[in-house]
Amino acid sequence: MKFGIACFPSKEVQDFANSYRKRYDPHYSLIQPHLTIREAEEWSSGRLKEAVAHLELAVKTLSPFTVRFNRFSSLLPGSAVIYLALEDPEPFIRCHEALCAGPLTEASKSYRFHPHLTIGQQLGHDEANDILASLRKIPVSLSATIDRIHMLYQTENDAWTVHQTFLFGRT
Amino acid sequence: MKFGIACFPSKEVQDFANSYRKRYDPHYSLIQPHLTIREAEEWSSGRLKEAVAHLELAVKTLSPFTVRFNRFSSLLPGSAVIYLALEDPEPFIRCHEALCAGPLTEASKSYRFHPHLTIGQQLGHDEANDILASLRKIPVSLSATIDRIHMLYQTENDAWTVHQTFLFGRT
Repeated sequence: MKFGIACFPSKEVQDFANSYRKRYDPHYSLIQPHLTIREAEEWSSGRLKEAVAHLELAVKTLSPFTVRFNRFSSLLPGSAVIYLALEDPEPFIRCHEALCAGPLTEASKSYRFHPHLTIGQQLGHDEANDILASLRKIPVSLSATIDRIHMLYQTENDAWTVHQTFLFGRT
Repeated sequence: MKFGIACFPSKEVQDFANSYRKRYDPHYSLIQPHLTIREAEEWSSGRLKEAVAHLELAVKTLSPFTVRFNRFSSLLPGSAVIYLALEDPEPFIRCHEALCAGPLTEASKSYRFHPHLTIGQQLGHDEANDILASLRKIPVSLSATIDRIHMLYQTENDAWTVHQTFLFGRT
């Protein structure tokens, strides 16, 4: 079964993101707007137990923090992904480092973790460039408190179900 | 903001349910297959806190239990809803009673809580009767362990995001 870890921002941010995702993101109906913390990976039940035990401890070391989305950006030209960007990604990066450690350490990747809330993907490069040019004119100023993460699993239709939430700093 | 409480059965049950929901349930892309424990209701942030506190205590009194889905059934003729039915609904009813108590006691309703996993709704009555007649011939024998519930909130597009999971019997 495939498991992943994600963070859902506030309803306000999700509503804003969905107004674009419904046009530009084929994953619109598979999962609510989120920031991926750990990519989907096939886990055995033993691996799942290990991951849950790790996260239960790891979130205790984290305190809620505020993120601010301040613009649309993209992974162009490497990838035709358009996303809502964080003004300051550092607190989210530190959160990622605390969670994806120990048994959840990720195999070395050729790219650095880059927190983002995808609102468009699987677009043609020219199309993505055009959309981004238009979206960049839209002012964005949305804040959200991040105080929990969710572990999810994927069903056969590629949609995601939440397995468990992990609240920061809970004893 | 609208909050509700639901239970997602195992991936196996969700996959089976989705194979029918994609044809018969307009909510297919709004939420994964679930058994509703408490209907959606507008909650203030104070009410939310009260509900979370209640559920955190209430789940400690519950132990995981197994449910078996053994047939398709319906709420016809009252309502054109088709669902996967539980062989023995009693453990789920007792779970509902423990959760929807105290501050989550439901206003008196004209119907008894009836656990079911909806796979078809918003159908014409004749259509629902025809579908049910065909589905009743399909053997159903699926089990799932129920060891957690989820509190969810609704976004503007009517989809649902999980707010928090509550694991049974956790201290």
